[in-house]
Amino acid sequence: MGNTFGHLFRVTTFGESHGAAVGVVIDGCPPKLALAPSDVQVELDRRRPGQSRITTQRQETDRVEFLSGVHDGLTLGTPIAMLVRNEDTRATDYEEMRTKFRPSHADFTYQAKFGIRAWEGGGRASARETVGRVAAGAVARKFLAERCKVEIVAWVAQVHDVDAHIDPTHVERGQVESNMARCPDSAAAAQMIERIDRARKDGDSLGGVVEAVARGVPPGWGEPVFDKLEADLAKAMLSLPAAKGFESGSGFAGTRLRGSEHNDPFYNAGGRVRTRTNHSGGIQGGISNGEDILIRVAFKPTATILREQHTVDVQGNDTTLKPRGRHDPCVLPRAVPIVEAMMALVLCDHWLRHRGQTGTGS
Amino acid sequence: MGNTFGHLFRVTTFGESHGAAVGVVIDGCPPKLALAPSDVQVELDRRRPGQSRITTQRQETDRVEFLSGVHDGLTLGTPIAMLVRNEDTRATDYEEMRTKFRPSHADFTYQAKFGIRAWEGGGRASARETVGRVAAGAVARKFLAERCKVEIVAWVAQVHDVDAHIDPTHVERGQVESNMARCPDSAAAAQMIERIDRARKDGDSLGGVVEAVARGVPPGWGEPVFDKLEADLAKAMLSLPAAKGFESGSGFAGTRLRGSEHNDPFYNAGGRVRTRTNHSGGIQGGISNGEDILIRVAFKPTATILREQHTVDVQGNDTTLKPRGRHDPCVLPRAVPIVEAMMALVLCDHWLRHRGQTGTGS
Amino acid sequence: MGNTFGHLFRVTTFGESHGAAVGVVIDGCPPKLALAPSDVQVELDRRRPGQSRITTQRQETDRVEFLSGVHDGLTLGTPIAMLVRNEDTRATDYEEMRTKFRPSHADFTYQAKFGIRAWEGGGRASARETVGRVAAGAVARKFLAERCKVEIVAWVAQVHDVDAHIDPTHVERGQVESNMARCPDSAAAAQMIERIDRARKDGDSLGGVVEAVARGVPPGWGEPVFDKLEADLAKAMLSLPAAKGFESGSGFAGTRLRGSEHNDPFYNAGGRVRTRTNHSGGIQGGISNGEDILIRVAFKPTATILREQHTVDVQGNDTTLKPRGRHDPCVLPRAVPIVEAMMALVLCDHWLRHRGQTGTGS
Amino acid sequence: MGNTFGHLFRVTTFGESHGAAVGVVIDGCPPKLALAPSDVQVELDRRRPGQSRITTQRQETDRVEFLSGVHDGLTLGTPIAMLVRNEDTRATDYEEMRTKFRPSHADFTYQAKFGIRAWEGGGRASARETVGRVAAGAVARKFLAERCKVEIVAWVAQVHDVDAHIDPTHVERGQVESNMARCPDSAAAAQMIERIDRARKDGDSLGGVVEAVARGVPPGWGEPVFDKLEADLAKAMLSLPAAKGFESGSGFAGTRLRGSEHNDPFYNAGGRVRTRTNHSGGIQGGISNGEDILIRVAFKPTATILREQHTVDVQGNDTTLKPRGRHDPCVLPRAVPIVEAMMALVLCDHWLRHRGQTGTGS
Repeated sequence: MGNTFGHLFRVTTFGESHGAAVGVVIDGCPPKLALAPSDVQVELDRRRPGQSRITTQRQETDRVEFLSGVHDGLTLGTPIAMLVRNEDTRATDYEEMRTKFRPSHADFTYQAKFGIRAWEGGGRASARETVGRVAAGAVARKFLAERCKVEIVAWVAQVHDVDAHIDPTHVERGQVESNMARCPDSAAAAQMIERIDRARKDGDSLGGVVEAVARGVPPGWGEPVFDKLEADLAKAMLSLPAAKGFESGSGFAGTRLRGSEHNDPFYNAGGRVRTRTNHSGGIQGGISNGEDILIRVAFKPTATILREQHTVDVQGNDTTLKPRGRHDPCVLPRAVPIVEAMMALVLCDHWLRHRGQTGTGS
Repeated sequence: MGNTFGHLFRVTTFGESHGAAVGVVIDGCPPKLALAPSDVQVELDRRRPGQSRITTQRQETDRVEFLSGVHDGLTLGTPIAMLVRNEDTRATDYEEMRTKFRPSHADFTYQAKFGIRAWEGGGRASARETVGRVAAGAVARKFLAERCKVEIVAWVAQVHDVDAHIDPTHVERGQVESNMARCPDSAAAAQMIERIDRARKDGDSLGGVVEAVARGVPPGWGEPVFDKLEADLAKAMLSLPAAKGFESGSGFAGTRLRGSEHNDPFYNAGGRVRTRTNHSGGIQGGISNGEDILIRVAFKPTATILREQHTVDVQGNDTTLKPRGRHDPCVLPRAVPIVEAMMALVLCDHWLRHRGQTGTGS
Repeated sequence: MGNTFGHLFRVTTFGESHGAAVGVVIDGCPPKLALAPSDVQVELDRRRPGQSRITTQRQETDRVEFLSGVHDGLTLGTPIAMLVRNEDTRATDYEEMRTKFRPSHADFTYQAKFGIRAWEGGGRASARETVGRVAAGAVARKFLAERCKVEIVAWVAQVHDVDAHIDPTHVERGQVESNMARCPDSAAAAQMIERIDRARKDGDSLGGVVEAVARGVPPGWGEPVFDKLEADLAKAMLSLPAAKGFESGSGFAGTRLRGSEHNDPFYNAGGRVRTRTNHSGGIQGGISNGEDILIRVAFKPTATILREQHTVDVQGNDTTLKPRGRHDPCVLPRAVPIVEAMMALVLCDHWLRHRGQTGTGS
Repeated sequence: MGNTFGHLFRVTTFGESHGAAVGVVIDGCPPKLALAPSDVQVELDRRRPGQSRITTQRQETDRVEFLSGVHDGLTLGTPIAMLVRNEDTRATDYEEMRTKFRPSHADFTYQAKFGIRAWEGGGRASARETVGRVAAGAVARKFLAERCKVEIVAWVAQVHDVDAHIDPTHVERGQVESNMARCPDSAAAAQMIERIDRARKDGDSLGGVVEAVARGVPPGWGEPVFDKLEADLAKAMLSLPAAKGFESGSGFAGTRLRGSEHNDPFYNAGGRVRTRTNHSGGIQGGISNGEDILIRVAFKPTATILREQHTVDVQGNDTTLKPRGRHDPCVLPRAVPIVEAMMALVLCDHWLRHRGQTGTGS
């Protein structure tokens, strides 16, 4: 269970790291959206391994195949199934994980839950599962852009001890894509790349923070109480492998302000209600207020490091493990398109819910 | 929409701040749990206003009435409906909010979404909605305690610039309840109370952080991929009024460690697999690993402050607003039982899901 | 579980026959619908016991109380909770059922499932649970009438061996309400009343069929595949106490026609696509086609009869039981408003889904 | 929307008749079930076209491919994705349907709902969609058989005017499979085949009834109120293409009995509570009582007939249409494995729900 996300724009992913394929079924994409495999491929290419020297060297072309839901280049309103075959699978790299649990990975907990696991490459817990998310997110993103003029941009804001400084109101995807670190602050990016390079050489790994903005969301999206826009964004982001934290707007830092400093005063901006500041991150009472939606996601350092570590085997005996295999020393750069995808899925779902719920045309 | 939480232990809350009542329906509580109104009342009493000089002075006894689902002191397996009448409602305090939007509150976004709102006291967006959550959480907590020996404790870890230092493994509820701040670090508590007092006198407000631990959760709870235990906890917490951030385990701080520092080595602890450290916060791959589950939740400073602020009215004209009414200068102390309730709801739901899903007796 | 119905217009009922109250929470009713308790009371009055000599003599005024979701006579878009107190409960009538299972009632299966049951009056399995459905259906019906000009009418089409002949295209509610049997064919109604009277005197019970029509549903409502309009109507109707069968359009009788006889030819009716016949009952491929939606629901004879019957007790010993208490010798007349309510809930939900799903204004 | 079925054993189908493939994702299949493609293939072979002269002559081998969720022959507890490529697609046969709506098919309603449709072979509304259902049903059936000793058998009980007489308690699948009609009453089967042959020669079509039994379901499955076992079976069956009616137990015929005739007396059968008769069809109050679960499903005559018919084109102009293509003159024989599949899905889901819900091991 738990492989489906969304209420009206519903996404179900499937696939293990070293099985036949990974993929996704979207149920609820509205009809008559122009959609070609290339719309999806461009996002998968941003996510795929082997893009640069600071990402895993697993080589996969990750070519998407559309199985259903599109007819003569237009969506039908029926389920869109998309498939990516697994290619560069080397189960032998994982032979040791057949019997030993990698620390801070999901090996032990899957075994505890299911009494069985696909031990090669993490199986279902592999970051490879996010292929389906990114494919679905590409469709959601296109829908949002074309029907609602909503634009989503994410970037790496922090790697280990390096913090970037980016203006979320104006940052463009081109700037994000301008370097391997996917950090639009080029000075910080250089330092990040240096840190990642060094960690890779050490057989170690680093964590960091991705920030994202959604621009153009009108007031009114999000459902009160449990399905607040922030709540669904938080769930979406904490469902990502290695995610350990989430902030909306001012987040943890905002807890150190007084209300008189933190409140965002409303004003009339040429007929449109706007706020002077945006500590709320574009969401108030769980509903969008028309300002930029701002979030931050913390990713821990990659669990798989190429160093000897203490652990136990499947019988529970103390042992040591030194993983081999091809791994990202830092997931942050590849996490950028994944965070964007999840943000697109949440917003697309809430747009449709808002339409269905209110019973009005807005 | 969005007033229901959970998949097998489903909770639906209802009620506006100044309407007839607030309440909750639980669908999916297993049968034959001993349950009396007093089990719920004790938690509502921790949540209710007017407990101390640092909370809102709204006076409500918040007496719970059971409407269904309990028979001769035992749950039936049918829906448990619980009701709390609203008593001390003073709509006149809110007369100005009929036409003006409070900055950083939900007045504007509800109006934008629905074209109508219950303007008295925030209506549905009032923290009064959490009465239903706390009532349901009391049932979940009792179920977890009796059937699974799971214990949940939350406390105030930070108010404004005051940070407490608490050992989550050993902190007890009695310590939390020993002072008005609900902070078991008594030195920090005294400072917090001083800060809140000062803010109240200034007509201002403060934010902070609640931490929570669940002890005794066995390995295996949580569903991979979208319904990870962390993801559902994040959603639960970000669905709370004023919540702006969530961390699991090492959270944002963990992003500044290397993998070799952050990984939690497994070892055999007398036949049980345990970890030496707990940066994972008891969850790996979205599934509990048997260690303490640790989370942190950021709450912004209360939006309603008793100072004049710039805002707009419902016609969009620039104006100013100086709220009256009775408000918490800092929601943190009262947020403690609410965070516990949400944690209990998530864990109870995932325990039932784990049972249903695996098709085994564990 | 299973006490919630609908995807966007979600209804959760609660309450046992002899508990404090029965009621319902609607989550997803669009905002700004004019709604007064009297709108609901009129439907509850059609459902309530003691209406005529052919229904149960239990006397309940069944006054509805609104707890939330309505403000100054308009819906808020937040949950609408409605409550009806139980009044005329006589648990002593059921003392024997504490230890004996009534044949063909839910006593045994609830005990088997939950290991506990509210034995007075059937507890949750009582037809009293439908109070919540009718209250929610009244809101859905009002919404459909005002926003979509959809009209729903149901009537008794058969009692035992008496079949009525009614034209579903033109039958009006006034005709249905013109007699105790709720059968607009007055000759058949007289016979039905005679049959029910006789069964009552015999301490026996009768079954029959309710037919219903929804007029004015435009083409396009209903979701392909699993959530076909017929599928959700079938589920709604088979979820009613005592329901054992469902037909859409030609139903079982249509299986004896050839395709060339059964197909409904399309034609252009002054610019609107219509069908010459309506064997499809207004639904094709699970989606409304603009014609009248026609369904039939079979209700078995009431299980509770006032005759001695063979059964077992809670220890499994053979015994006999002669129920006392106040029961409907035939549920059909009171089933009419209940069938209408369920039809309204299904249509209202599918209207909102259609709006949300298609992403268009239609 | 609406392409997912089930609450804990969740099935999502995808695919159009003339697209690349059809398939299914199962989310929630418990781990460690032995599962091979051959387990699924045997059911697909019973469903596939071209089996005999009385079914459509479309030739498809319908080879299933497992994409995920199975590891070394055992289910992992992760999503099981299964794929069947479309092979013998002849879009040219459908050229006329590009612009004309087939009477009583879903062409018009899909166009009305979505503003677009895959016009070749009915697209998503084709019976080919049921490939995914049958594949998923094969998994559910194996699970039920191995873990719960539940056996499901369906058969053709009626074709047009030919009624078979079968004892549901003892009928075996071997008898069902002994003739092309899938009717275990061989005399009736011969007549059915004759009727279908004649209809085929006439370019016409026939309807009929499938009956099904589930044997071995213990007491306690099914959720009260909306998710009654009967309600979910009714939804499952009415979600099938061409289905127009559903009965549980005595169904419509039972409405003509008195309660004293219809009630099923309980008795002690060697320590187990059983009923003397089974008018209830194994379900009371929506919950299984341990007796055989009996249902009947009405299928209308196939909408596609090879005769000239009046209809309209996509502009709404009156016209005529004479379909070509390969079609079943009677869907009944191929509907048998499909009805079994849906019954298995409902029971498997409710078994898991019962386990999750009650919080006990039963």
